[in-house]
Formats: sequence, C-alpha cells, structure tokens
Amino acid sequence: MAMKRVATSAIRAFTSSGIPSPSSVLTRELHASPGSKKIVGVFYKANEFASMNPNFVGCAENALGIRDWLESQGHQYIVTDDKDGPDCELEKHIPDLHVLITTPFHPAYVTAERIKKAKNLQLLLTAGIGSDHVDLKAAADAGLTVAEVTGSNVVSVAEDELMRILILIRNFLPGHHQVISGDWNVAAIAYRAYDLEGKTVGTVGAGRIGRLLLQRLKPFNCNLLYHDRIKMDPELESQTGAKFEEDLDAMLPKCDIIVINAPLTEKTKGMFNKEKIAKLKKGVLVVNNARGAIMDTQAVVDACSSGHIAGYSGDVWNPQPAPKDHPWRYMPNQAMTPHISGTTIDGQLRYAAGVKDMLERYFKGEDFPPQHYIVKDGELASQYR
Amino acid sequence: MAMKRVATSAIRAFTSSGIPSPSSVLTRELHASPGSKKIVGVFYKANEFASMNPNFVGCAENALGIRDWLESQGHQYIVTDDKDGPDCELEKHIPDLHVLITTPFHPAYVTAERIKKAKNLQLLLTAGIGSDHVDLKAAADAGLTVAEVTGSNVVSVAEDELMRILILIRNFLPGHHQVISGDWNVAAIAYRAYDLEGKTVGTVGAGRIGRLLLQRLKPFNCNLLYHDRIKMDPELESQTGAKFEEDLDAMLPKCDIIVINAPLTEKTKGMFNKEKIAKLKKGVLVVNNARGAIMDTQAVVDACSSGHIAGYSGDVWNPQPAPKDHPWRYMPNQAMTPHISGTTIDGQLRYAAGVKDMLERYFKGEDFPPQHYIVKDGELASQYR
Repeated sequence: MAMKRVATSAIRAFTSSGIPSPSSVLTRELHASPGSKKIVGVFYKANEFASMNPNFVGCAENALGIRDWLESQGHQYIVTDDKDGPDCELEKHIPDLHVLITTPFHPAYVTAERIKKAKNLQLLLTAGIGSDHVDLKAAADAGLTVAEVTGSNVVSVAEDELMRILILIRNFLPGHHQVISGDWNVAAIAYRAYDLEGKTVGTVGAGRIGRLLLQRLKPFNCNLLYHDRIKMDPELESQTGAKFEEDLDAMLPKCDIIVINAPLTEKTKGMFNKEKIAKLKKGVLVVNNARGAIMDTQAVVDACSSGHIAGYSGDVWNPQPAPKDHPWRYMPNQAMTPHISGTTIDGQLRYAAGVKDMLERYFKGEDFPPQHYIVKDGELASQYR
Repeated sequence: MAMKRVATSAIRAFTSSGIPSPSSVLTRELHASPGSKKIVGVFYKANEFASMNPNFVGCAENALGIRDWLESQGHQYIVTDDKDGPDCELEKHIPDLHVLITTPFHPAYVTAERIKKAKNLQLLLTAGIGSDHVDLKAAADAGLTVAEVTGSNVVSVAEDELMRILILIRNFLPGHHQVISGDWNVAAIAYRAYDLEGKTVGTVGAGRIGRLLLQRLKPFNCNLLYHDRIKMDPELESQTGAKFEEDLDAMLPKCDIIVINAPLTEKTKGMFNKEKIAKLKKGVLVVNNARGAIMDTQAVVDACSSGHIAGYSGDVWNPQPAPKDHPWRYMPNQAMTPHISGTTIDGQLRYAAGVKDMLERYFKGEDFPPQHYIVKDGELASQYR
C-alpha cells in the first residue's frame, strides 16, 4: 500500500505530453523551508508494470521509494522519464535543480551545456554504476560532485554475464526459436553447441564485476585469464585460478570467450574496432555488459556477419535506448537485450538505498563512502582518468 | 576429410523415402565374417549441418565416427533417423540386428513388441544418458544387456540447467524479444527480473548431474537444498553447502527455484501432477532437463497460465520430437528448447568414445564399466527399480 501512494504521487511529474494527467490534481504546493533542495530524478517509465511488484522501486512512478521521505523533509522531488531534446521535462528543471539523479539504464545525458545552464546544481547521483552519461570533465571543472552507488549491482551484472556466456556457447537461442516456431531440429543447434568446461575465458577488466564473474566461473573448469591495469592480490588470484595478462593484445587471441568489464572512458571508447577484433580468435564469443560505446558498432556487425565473432551478447548499446534501426538488432548470432542486467529488483533495492544514504549525508553536509565518488573536489576517480 | 568419408558412407542408410539416394551407388557389399554383427544406430539427421563441424559425430550422417572402424572389422553398420511406425527403416532391421544404438535426443522407442521381434538382439546401447525409451522390464525378461555412457554428458546437462535458472530468474527472453521486435522497454523486463543470489534452489535428485549443478551454484550465494533417496557423503555436502531434505513435500514449498534431476521411472512418471505443483511456492521457477514425462503436461500448462509457476525451462518433452501442437510451445513464460543439453559437441565426443569402448568390449566378450549397466543379467540398475 505504501508503494501505491508513492506511485500515485510520482505520476504528476509526467507532463511531457503537455496534457495534465488526471492525477495532477493531487499536486501539493511545496513550501520550501530554508535549506530545502530541488531534486530531479530521471528514470525509465513503467506504466502498467509500476504497480505489479511492490519492490519495483527503480522506475519513474516508484521513484526509488524516497518521495515521502524527501517531501517530509521539505524538499522538492521531480521525477520524469522525459530527458532528451530542448523541450523535454528535464530541460525545464535544469536552471534551478540542486541535485540530479540519473541511471545508466535510461541515461539522461548530462552535457557540458546542461551543466553550464544548471546554476544551482551541486550533486549528480547515479542510481547504479557507470557515470559515463555525464560529461565528467565539465562536471569537475564546474566544481560539482558526481557519485554512484558502487557495488550496488555488481553481483547482478556478473550473474548476467555468466548467463550470456552460457547462452552463447550452448547455442540456446536457435533452439528456443525452433520451439516457438513449431520446429524440432536438434542438429541445427547441436553442430555449434559446446560445453563451457575446458574453454578459455578472458575478462578485459577485473574490477568488482570482473572478479565476481571469475569467482562464479571457477567451478566450470575453464582456463581463466584477465587483463587489467593492476594485478589482483595473490589471494584472490589463487582463489579464482585466473591468470594475469599484462598485454591485452597477447591475451585476445587465446580466448574462446571475451568478456568486457571495463568502464567507458576516453581510453576505452571505440577500443574494439576492426583492428582489435581482428586479433580475436576466429569463432570467438563476446559478452559486453559494460558499455556499448567501447565497441565500434559497425565493426561488431561486420565480424558477426563474417563469423569471426560467432556470438555477441550484452545489454549495452550506443546510444540508449537503441533506435529501431540499430544494426545490432539485426546482426546474426546476437543475444542482446535492452539495458537490464544491473536493474534487477534486488539491484534496484540496493541502489535506491545507496542513493537515499548519499542524499541523507548531503543534507547533513557529511562525506559519502569514498568508493562512491566519481568526481570529488574537481578530481576524477582513477578509473575515469 | 576423414569425417567427410564417414558422412558419405552413412547417407546410404537414408532410404526411408523409398527413393534411392544418389549416394546409394556407393554401397559396398558387406561379406560378414564369422562373428560379424549387424549393428543399427538411430540418430537425428543433420542434413546440411552434418558437414559444418568435423566433431559433429552425434548425427546420423557422421554416425558416432565409428563406421570405418566397425566395417574394417567385418561388422555391418546401418544408420537411420527413421524410427517410428511399422514401415520405418528401423523396423526393417529389427528381425536380424544384434546391437541397437539409440539416443535420448531422438529416441527410438524400444517397445516390448520390438524386443519380441528382435530374435538376434543382444545389446542395447544408449549414446548418452537415460534409457527410459527402452522397455527395460521387457529387455530384462528377454535377457538383453542395456547400457549407457554414464557420465558422458553430465557436465553438459548441469551447465545447461544453470543457464536455464539464470534465463528464468533474470527474465532474459522478454528482453531479447524486445530487441528483435524493435522495442525498448526496460520496465517490462525489470519488474520481474531478480538476481539468483540469496534465492533458495532445490534439486529433486542429487545424482551426478544434480551434484555438478550444486557445485556450480555454490559461488552464487544461494540457499541450496536437495532431495534424494540417499544423503550425499558429508564431504560433498559441505563442499556445496547443500542441505539434505528427506521429505520432498517439505522441501517443495521452500524453493524459489526447483530443478528436476531424477530419472524417469515408474515412480517418477507424472510425479509433478496438479497436487504436487500446488505444493510449490507461488511464483516458483522450474527447470527440467531430466525427462518430460516426469511432469503432467497439462498441469504445467495450467500452472504457467495461472502464474503459480512463473517460469518453466527445459529441453525434455513428452513425446519427442514434440509435435507442432505440443502445449508447452504456447504456454506463457516458457524458455524451452528441443532436447539438446546433453548433445553438445563436447558431449558427443564423449558418448561416441564410450559407445566405441563398449562395442570393443562386447566383441571381445568383456564386461563393461559397471556404472554403465542399466540392465545386466535380467536385473535393472537400482535407479530404475
């Protein structure tokens, strides 16, 4: 019941159509007390799904479940899913908002231009992990704080990566498509279905997600490799049995399966271009739940079409939402989804709690847990440098 | 190249259409030496896929890769995929075959009637695991030996089960269907997508496959339960952290996810009927790669339609191949495939080697590895009793 109230009161922000929604009559005048903040949240809209699960806090209607708490403290909380173009709902609030909460799943792109217009802006919070939709340099130059809920959905993403590895190597989707289209042809699946056991899996990046993936891969008896800027501590390395590969280009041709676990930065943007993909083993499987822009879109399409990449799966695209004509929707042997892996119900509850905790600290003038900072005092966190 | 020869020589057995295939001109007269045996193999036909992978030995065309070896020893080897009805190719060879090799993926049903007609039959070999397509009582009464390649694809099936658990709990398929139909609606996926971490997973049966599954589930930090006739040895139990549930009906309501890992026997046939399914938690996910007939087909459809079962995935059906109008093709929240999990390329190579080894022992009059026997000296193996 509590969730239903949240949902009802959140809906009033959806005025992007220009037509007042029936629930707009519920709008209360907010008498901002001194120190009261204007907080704007941009989340994906759930429509009929919003009321289907009381723990579905990550959508715009349920607004992280923090509306009652924020309003009881005298703050203003605007929530919308309308984030693009000069006439969008978000744009209207840019000039006077203090805090902007965004997510990687339905990214509100916080450009240098928007930052310039946002004269009151102090804090940019990412509900989830990955703040590359924010122009971090512009944010740092403007003296803003950018923080995310580090760790909130690392388990969610690592589990999802293992699922995608299995879907590709075991050739699940052609089998499922046979079922729904009334066919039965075991051979058409089996000729390219393999066990994961005994294969070589390499992760490009072994941060929190990469390490959780390696731990989950351990009992599958694979040959595990990882490339990162830093070697893992020996205990974790021996726990997973993964071997450090300092030279990425030396690791790539060894792998039957490559998983991307690197943040999107100036260095990783477009990193897997035609030349890099050519270094991969012919018939490689690629899983990328990191960021779509780490890949050269067309190079991936070409490699899937030629068979050099035998399967590509991930939930990240460039841009997001992926337009109807995005070529990854149409390339062969893809096992793609919309950006979902980090926004399971479990993940949502964790990042909603993390956002609430940071807002509470912000109101009190306290520091955040240090690992949450992406930009602090004009300085970028190390992985974004 | 060697594989191509196998494929060509195997094709001559495909005469079910009544029209001689162009390759039938390749047929050599086989001059059976004394002690020569007539061996018939029934496998799924691969057509254009047969030549696409040199290790694709499990199809009819490649015939386990043992044709040259068998024929060089003077044995006759007939291979077909035509297994049903009174006029099928298999039926023609029943009266004089000595050995029949079948698979669970494209089961040739060895009925009491066929056994009665097979006057020369001595040995029934299953390329794979699961010999329930054979009337085991009739085989025992007739003094036949029935054996399978125990262990040949247990890893394959366990991996596949973990994949299906993740596909269901993370709600993968609706997301993938959005991609191919040009949509983007994260909420429609997220409202019922969960992490596996923290959920309760119970396996009904903890034989070789069930144990491998539990080992692979270990790093996911689930609550693991298992029901079996016998408690695992304490070392394996503490290794997986799984808790023994002596009473199946007490375990069922505790589980968020149920995995069936029991053989099909008189006791397990139709075991998950309406009453048993009613004992499951509302919203349970069910994975069944064991045998389709363990479930009451309509009870599963009804429970998926009502939402009592929130997701059902497996590769086994009753009967197989599943007809076009099998209701599991059309029920909501299914993640089904044709029978594929045990016939990965890795699995095929293992069960082909196991069949060859048993044939070699059979020709020499030697015993098989004891764990391979399903019926020996008129006695059923313990799990089939």
